[in-house]
Amino acid sequence: MNATEYAAAHRSDFLAQLKEFLSIPSISTVDGSDDVKRAAEWVAAQLRQVGMTTVDIYPTPGHPIVYGAWSGAPGAPTVLVYGHYDVQPVDPLEEWQSPPFEPTERDGKLFARGATDDKGQVFTQIKAIESLMRVTNGNLPVNVKFLIEGEEEVSSPNLDAWIESHQELVKADVCVISDSNILALDRPLITYSVRGLTYMELEVRGPNHDLHSGSYGGTVHNPLQALCEIIAALHNPDGSVAVPGFYDKVRQLDQAEREAIAKIPWTNEEWHTETGAPQSWGEAGYTLRERIGARPTLEINGIIGGFTAKGSKTVLPAKGMAKISCRLVADQDPYEVEELVRARVKQLTPPTVISELRGLNYAYPATVPIDDPTMVAAKIAYKRGFGAEPVFLPEGGTLPIVVTLRTLFNMPVVLLGFGLPDDSLHAPNEKISLESFYRGINTAIAFFEEVSKIAVHQVDSAT
Amino acid sequence: MNATEYAAAHRSDFLAQLKEFLSIPSISTVDGSDDVKRAAEWVAAQLRQVGMTTVDIYPTPGHPIVYGAWSGAPGAPTVLVYGHYDVQPVDPLEEWQSPPFEPTERDGKLFARGATDDKGQVFTQIKAIESLMRVTNGNLPVNVKFLIEGEEEVSSPNLDAWIESHQELVKADVCVISDSNILALDRPLITYSVRGLTYMELEVRGPNHDLHSGSYGGTVHNPLQALCEIIAALHNPDGSVAVPGFYDKVRQLDQAEREAIAKIPWTNEEWHTETGAPQSWGEAGYTLRERIGARPTLEINGIIGGFTAKGSKTVLPAKGMAKISCRLVADQDPYEVEELVRARVKQLTPPTVISELRGLNYAYPATVPIDDPTMVAAKIAYKRGFGAEPVFLPEGGTLPIVVTLRTLFNMPVVLLGFGLPDDSLHAPNEKISLESFYRGINTAIAFFEEVSKIAVHQVDSAT
Repeated sequence: MNATEYAAAHRSDFLAQLKEFLSIPSISTVDGSDDVKRAAEWVAAQLRQVGMTTVDIYPTPGHPIVYGAWSGAPGAPTVLVYGHYDVQPVDPLEEWQSPPFEPTERDGKLFARGATDDKGQVFTQIKAIESLMRVTNGNLPVNVKFLIEGEEEVSSPNLDAWIESHQELVKADVCVISDSNILALDRPLITYSVRGLTYMELEVRGPNHDLHSGSYGGTVHNPLQALCEIIAALHNPDGSVAVPGFYDKVRQLDQAEREAIAKIPWTNEEWHTETGAPQSWGEAGYTLRERIGARPTLEINGIIGGFTAKGSKTVLPAKGMAKISCRLVADQDPYEVEELVRARVKQLTPPTVISELRGLNYAYPATVPIDDPTMVAAKIAYKRGFGAEPVFLPEGGTLPIVVTLRTLFNMPVVLLGFGLPDDSLHAPNEKISLESFYRGINTAIAFFEEVSKIAVHQVDSAT
Repeated sequence: MNATEYAAAHRSDFLAQLKEFLSIPSISTVDGSDDVKRAAEWVAAQLRQVGMTTVDIYPTPGHPIVYGAWSGAPGAPTVLVYGHYDVQPVDPLEEWQSPPFEPTERDGKLFARGATDDKGQVFTQIKAIESLMRVTNGNLPVNVKFLIEGEEEVSSPNLDAWIESHQELVKADVCVISDSNILALDRPLITYSVRGLTYMELEVRGPNHDLHSGSYGGTVHNPLQALCEIIAALHNPDGSVAVPGFYDKVRQLDQAEREAIAKIPWTNEEWHTETGAPQSWGEAGYTLRERIGARPTLEINGIIGGFTAKGSKTVLPAKGMAKISCRLVADQDPYEVEELVRARVKQLTPPTVISELRGLNYAYPATVPIDDPTMVAAKIAYKRGFGAEPVFLPEGGTLPIVVTLRTLFNMPVVLLGFGLPDDSLHAPNEKISLESFYRGINTAIAFFEEVSKIAVHQVDSAT
């Protein structure tokens, strides 16, 4: 029996374990959550069970980091598996068809918060290692280290510091991360770049207390109106971001890259099926795919102020707040972008209100060369796991770990994702396709086997 | 002992009773609230206690109406006292210095939800009647009817229908309402007009579910951004409302009215002290007072959408919602204004999102002639109660009952208010000045006495 056959024979066990993992509500926006701790312990137990010889839970000022390692293959490359066991909040709860922490199967899909992001995906790596270990009497073709954190969904505030002070534990020849999407079950995808992020909160204040709109309306610049006026002026009519300097450091798409992206169809119909929005929108002069992966954006993630319950209250509120984030591409700097947005907001704020822009989270964008030998190994692994050649695409999301590992160790990072575009990550009714989950395990098995064939000096030479 | 002396001797009783009234959380936005019912029963008991010979609680499809009457003065005018026992919601609760339904005295002021709007003010009328009754062995100089409703803060959806089907109970020679402000303890004020209202909810929808801003941001018109863009376009840079046709039916201020309003100083400093806002704002070409009372407005009362809790969630939300209300002046029609706003929103909605404007509440604006004999009685009453001549001003708030009573009965309505500009009605830390409360009782006593001197035919001739 080989590892793939072992995995096939244990599908129902793996699925039952995944459901157990998904039933822990490890929402990392909840400070000091016991559930997050419980998820860390669950992951540590799994790592011990599959055969890691070193397993520890490291506390951080936030949520703990789970670390596991096996180094029984001297001379072979060392693979670092990064993932996260924390999940997004679940609101709006009323839109879930089944409770977010009661994993429910429907039509070959498993619905739960974290199903695809990232519990289901990181679990494929753990089960690949188990499968390889069980058929070789406890051996692996490569050395393995697991680094599974609990703060990815809050932008990993403590991860970089931990990595910097535990470099010997983290150091590896290649990192593999399963926390991204493919295009379809027959169209696997390798993500070669990720966007950065600057996440901000904009507060606009007017009167120092809520006023009666009848007694003061018409003499006070309504802070919600002012907030809307500022937000409305952050985009140009052509869909570009109206922040002076915003595009200055953006690496322009070259013709080869545009042609590669153009090879991967994403029609307006597909876009419409996925989003349900009436008509696409965005920066003029760029295709939908280019807007997602290769161009920076500015989004309003949330807005609140005044009376919002049922019925009518004639209040003129004291303040309003919006959550605003920018997705960044190479070579934008998230801290510089914050200052650019702050300057623009300042410029847009009239003397009738006071505005304050607070930075919350930052991540740099990053790109990995597609001819790296580890990327080639990934290409073969997908072919084995999914039966199809993967395409290469820049990713719209953010993975700061990619930047950290390349900066500290010059480590190539392979994004070996198994999610599907309609998985509703960060939204109600998040799910994972079970077929993708099982193929993901096979792909991870294949990746470990393929990477083992690469000479260590080749891996090290990655730039 | 005369009625004023009686009132002076019973101040502590009156205050204790008012605290009891204010401790009932009769928030009318709560459907079927038992607390609202309890407040109605409390008012009915008070009316019986002070000497009304007919007292009934009338159910409505919403909250009940309390009615009380005494008709022992044949040949004398009949005065209808209108007021409301319901109160506004209390959010944001955390900004209250003392709990909203635990009336608390600080510096000669009584803090509680409803202290000034309207429990404290309507209670002055009840206690004035008690004072007059007690010193005359159960007699009054006028016939009196009380109509105290429980849905004023939700725009009285059932009041007009009830009045229309109970016209004999309601019919009177004059109506007096204590539910408005004076300028200061030494500057009483008679309000001769009230603004109307159109209260709406604007929802903007984009994708049919929340999306990940990394996976879709840049290709979807963010509904919160679109909502802000629409709202920002509802005002012109000069502070006027950017809704075509909005000003068409507005009765222009004449020179005499502008001069009368100009006599009542409301400096930028006073405005700033009351609002705490950095700088005044509004329609160019009009003074602060004119903007409040004599010009229509459009306000954003609330806005919500996406992720608004602590921290950062990179969601691209499916929808956003804003509460929008227009304050109207003669001769605007609230239903016409809704259609004008709807047409403008439709015009402003791009094909990338879907917008829906829902009308929630409507009230017509109204004006009462300042030379009406009942207004003269009110002028004398203030002189007696506050020791100062009142000024006349148009009011920014909305009192639909004024319109109903004038339409059905041609009844003059006297707004005999005792609130102060810094009472924070509809806001946290609402209060009433105890001095204003006691002077209000004396003014109400004086008003009943002065109105009794007017021949009924004179009252009836009011236009």
